[in-house]
Amino acid sequence: MPTYTAPTQDIQFLLHDILDIAAQDIPGYSDLDRDFTAAIVEEAGKLAANVILPTNRTGDQQGCRLENGVVRVPDGFREAFDALREGGWTALDCDEAYGGQGLPAIMRTASNEAFVSANMALNMYQGLTHGAYLAIHKHGTDAQKDTFLPKLVSCQWTGTMNLTEAHCGTDLGLMRTKAEPQEDGTYRISGEKIFISSGEHEMADNIVHLVLAKIPGGPDGVKGISLFIVPKFLVNEDGSLGDRNGVRCTGLEEKMGIHGNSTCVMTYEGATGYLLGAEHKGMRAMFTMMNDARAGVGLQGLSQAAIAYQNALAYAQDRLQGRDITGAKQPDAPADPIIVHPDVRRSLMEQKSFVEGGRAFAMWASMLLDRAERTGDEATEGLVSLLTPVIKGFLTDKGYEYATQAQQIYGGHGYIEEWGMSQYVRDARIAMIYEGTNGVQALDLVGRKLASGGGRHAMAFFDHVKGFLKEAGQDDELSPAILDPLKAASKDLQAAAMFFMQQGPKDPNAALAGSTDFLHMFGHVCLGLMWGRMAVKAKAMLEAGEGDADFLRTKIATARFYGRRQLPLTGALLKRIESGSEPVMALEAANF
Amino acid sequence: MPTYTAPTQDIQFLLHDILDIAAQDIPGYSDLDRDFTAAIVEEAGKLAANVILPTNRTGDQQGCRLENGVVRVPDGFREAFDALREGGWTALDCDEAYGGQGLPAIMRTASNEAFVSANMALNMYQGLTHGAYLAIHKHGTDAQKDTFLPKLVSCQWTGTMNLTEAHCGTDLGLMRTKAEPQEDGTYRISGEKIFISSGEHEMADNIVHLVLAKIPGGPDGVKGISLFIVPKFLVNEDGSLGDRNGVRCTGLEEKMGIHGNSTCVMTYEGATGYLLGAEHKGMRAMFTMMNDARAGVGLQGLSQAAIAYQNALAYAQDRLQGRDITGAKQPDAPADPIIVHPDVRRSLMEQKSFVEGGRAFAMWASMLLDRAERTGDEATEGLVSLLTPVIKGFLTDKGYEYATQAQQIYGGHGYIEEWGMSQYVRDARIAMIYEGTNGVQALDLVGRKLASGGGRHAMAFFDHVKGFLKEAGQDDELSPAILDPLKAASKDLQAAAMFFMQQGPKDPNAALAGSTDFLHMFGHVCLGLMWGRMAVKAKAMLEAGEGDADFLRTKIATARFYGRRQLPLTGALLKRIESGSEPVMALEAANF
Repeated sequence: MPTYTAPTQDIQFLLHDILDIAAQDIPGYSDLDRDFTAAIVEEAGKLAANVILPTNRTGDQQGCRLENGVVRVPDGFREAFDALREGGWTALDCDEAYGGQGLPAIMRTASNEAFVSANMALNMYQGLTHGAYLAIHKHGTDAQKDTFLPKLVSCQWTGTMNLTEAHCGTDLGLMRTKAEPQEDGTYRISGEKIFISSGEHEMADNIVHLVLAKIPGGPDGVKGISLFIVPKFLVNEDGSLGDRNGVRCTGLEEKMGIHGNSTCVMTYEGATGYLLGAEHKGMRAMFTMMNDARAGVGLQGLSQAAIAYQNALAYAQDRLQGRDITGAKQPDAPADPIIVHPDVRRSLMEQKSFVEGGRAFAMWASMLLDRAERTGDEATEGLVSLLTPVIKGFLTDKGYEYATQAQQIYGGHGYIEEWGMSQYVRDARIAMIYEGTNGVQALDLVGRKLASGGGRHAMAFFDHVKGFLKEAGQDDELSPAILDPLKAASKDLQAAAMFFMQQGPKDPNAALAGSTDFLHMFGHVCLGLMWGRMAVKAKAMLEAGEGDADFLRTKIATARFYGRRQLPLTGALLKRIESGSEPVMALEAANF
Repeated sequence: MPTYTAPTQDIQFLLHDILDIAAQDIPGYSDLDRDFTAAIVEEAGKLAANVILPTNRTGDQQGCRLENGVVRVPDGFREAFDALREGGWTALDCDEAYGGQGLPAIMRTASNEAFVSANMALNMYQGLTHGAYLAIHKHGTDAQKDTFLPKLVSCQWTGTMNLTEAHCGTDLGLMRTKAEPQEDGTYRISGEKIFISSGEHEMADNIVHLVLAKIPGGPDGVKGISLFIVPKFLVNEDGSLGDRNGVRCTGLEEKMGIHGNSTCVMTYEGATGYLLGAEHKGMRAMFTMMNDARAGVGLQGLSQAAIAYQNALAYAQDRLQGRDITGAKQPDAPADPIIVHPDVRRSLMEQKSFVEGGRAFAMWASMLLDRAERTGDEATEGLVSLLTPVIKGFLTDKGYEYATQAQQIYGGHGYIEEWGMSQYVRDARIAMIYEGTNGVQALDLVGRKLASGGGRHAMAFFDHVKGFLKEAGQDDELSPAILDPLKAASKDLQAAAMFFMQQGPKDPNAALAGSTDFLHMFGHVCLGLMWGRMAVKAKAMLEAGEGDADFLRTKIATARFYGRRQLPLTGALLKRIESGSEPVMALEAANF
């Protein structure tokens, strides 16, 4: 069975040595000293390893069951969820006015990786609640906030997002769910929503559904969509629970993974809903929480790869099979551990450099999100919105790929459910799909974000890379290993962006045909930037005699691997992109 | 639910227009005219689509159950298996002396793709039987052949391969299963084997286990391993079934996929075994069927991607979501089919170019195997042994990747088991692991095959590519699109091989650290060669007014895609390889 140790040292290194959070001029950051963040990350890690992890396989095996409209969650889920909410973890970065702890979002990211690694399906119950909290916090009336936020912050009530219908996923303009205005100012919601994560379960006293629907007579397409709060139980004026609302779970999906999370068909039959935000402005309200939600999904991809890697590494150090080609490493044992084999090592280094580089990327992006939210800085907000599809798309595509590689380290045992590696692959798979498929992320990146603000967010990103490289200067060890490859990769990325700009006016398909390749290039440049930063800092610390020398040397070696083995991929991706739309679009749809 | 249509036109094109089988000087090939092969491929396709495919999801859902030592297979499996064997499909390329039809192996490949696409788990019962047939046919005594072969050919009895033990997978030298010689010339087999596919089930009257074991007192390691025939029921002299032998299934694995195939723990307690081949030469006997078995696993990867692609394409042509960015394609419908979106098209082209290129590669390799087997030509045998790890490793790595991409086309529906796409991914996953993990394939390719015969098989391959390019000459359309990229990719591959040769003496890890990248480069060059051939032939046929013009033009367009979008990857893989072993091996195992 898989084990787990939270990456406390790594996260502390990122928070303090790389991001230097306590010195940032972001409200709330000055309190985040080393001891404080260590305590949080360590406690989260303990809870994850001791209480949450033991529920992961049970959740996968038992799944959720729908019995007479009630969804039963797997054994142990309620107790683990209680531990999460009673420990205050769901309230970490919520508004103190509603019972939250008011910490910056970066502390949520720093602690959440452990929870998601330990049980992704379970953590979704709080993840979606956090999304509902954000939406109501941003767009709700004072009365709505007072009614719903304290319960969502504590996770006594949980939240959901209701977007998809059977015939309408990405294209929400096709939506059919109706919201008819009533004389008392409420709306009657009718329709059927599918793929509603945490849509129904028995771990909360109430469930607060956020539902996209169309008010009859409004504009066509996405411009006529509004957002509604539809609680499972209506709430009386005194805050007590009233009548059961006209919404129920009419089906549970049988899925490839995340079995412990209830994926529901939700049927609305004249349910009472309360408009959240303005009429017909539902999409805008949804979008305000999208950066947060997509970053959360990116973290899911990363987390599954992280725990899968941790276990693959332990297996590779333990499993005896074959001999080191350069001479037996454990001559007294019947064979050497498989970590001696270069191809096993190659795979572990790919996993490690992705997991640690991706973690750095997620933490940096989380800090940027805090800056944008807490200072209102527009340039940072632009950068966050540019990076968001990269975080979501790259960390989940690669999270799945490396969870698969980790499973591969186990040989035949990796395919057996008992060993737990299959579940990481199956659970990680959904993160490439939901919250906008990765193809939609690539479209968002290339079709919208790249050119937004006249391209100045992209320019700012490239300037940021250049600034870092200039500051890092020339270094005999680091330049050939990571800094020069980063420079080359960043140039490749700029060349691709330039190609899109030149082709765009005459051939809009040219950019879109290369969008996924571009997203992957962008991801490599971001991780390359992270590895550049980590290597430069690690070297400076070593020279100053600071920190844990083994840890720092390992960072430099891993950075070298990323620079020499991963960054060169951008050159090939650029070539693909520069072949334009013709090879992609040449066939008529009927001739496939 | 997934549907299936066998790729008859494509296979006919490969057999006759590309490989020109009837003109080959390979015994048995001259009979393979168009009508004959069309009849076989079409019949196989019908059986696959109408009888076998309907059992695929049932098999996944029900799995196998172990009840008092008996393994129950899923509903419908027995009937479908009966149809397979009663139709003579299991006997297709078997020796006529034992009831086979004596056709070349290429016809097995041509028909088997449909069966594996339709139900991979079911087809494994006949696949392993074929392996046992080959081993006994090659190494058995006349008496052994007479006793076992007719029943294996008809699949009235099925076969298994028993290699793995809990502590010993790749490293068979660690084996503990014992074979004690008896006075009557038989052996008493004792030990426990795991991961035995089709190890026990109720669809055959007898099961013929081929078991690797050590005769006490023999040489250490793999040099002391012998191969034994251990039937579930002993066979009387008159061919009737006798006593139950001391072998039983003591456990069934719960797996990520191929649920319909029984993966057994087999316990041998003094079972009667018959030596197959010479004492201590068991590994050699196993290796003789390895080219065939590994090619078969490669076909599994390809087949799962093939049926997944077929369904993803249909979904993409049907699912309405969003609009073509260059203008609505179906203005009267609420939205356009998603195939209009360039990133969806990109994914479908990647899948299509892999599936059709991989199919060509598998068929070509199958013809080479026939030539090697039927003419004893050593050069061809060397080429086959060089290509075998590429077929196994590349077609299964990519088969999984493209099954995943096909699933992605379905968006959220792809994650729901009911739609069937998850199963293709889960089933395809095992093919990267068993019959030697893909890391072991890469090791075999780089550590053994590349240099075997003084490197002359590799030289022969490169000469073959050069010969094709020379023959194809310069072509304004095809040179920039596919022929030049193939030339460049082949040069990259040679440069990598050269790098290995130069580094090898001083740093044996250098080649092994790049082995997986090399295998993937090799795969791309092979598929590039196939696309080059197909494009050149298609163009010649179009110019001559032969064949189906739409089909041929589609081939050329797909070849262009492969040349422009996939072959450039070899450049990046070469760079990774040329970074040598240092980035991979820099960390001490303890410092990960």
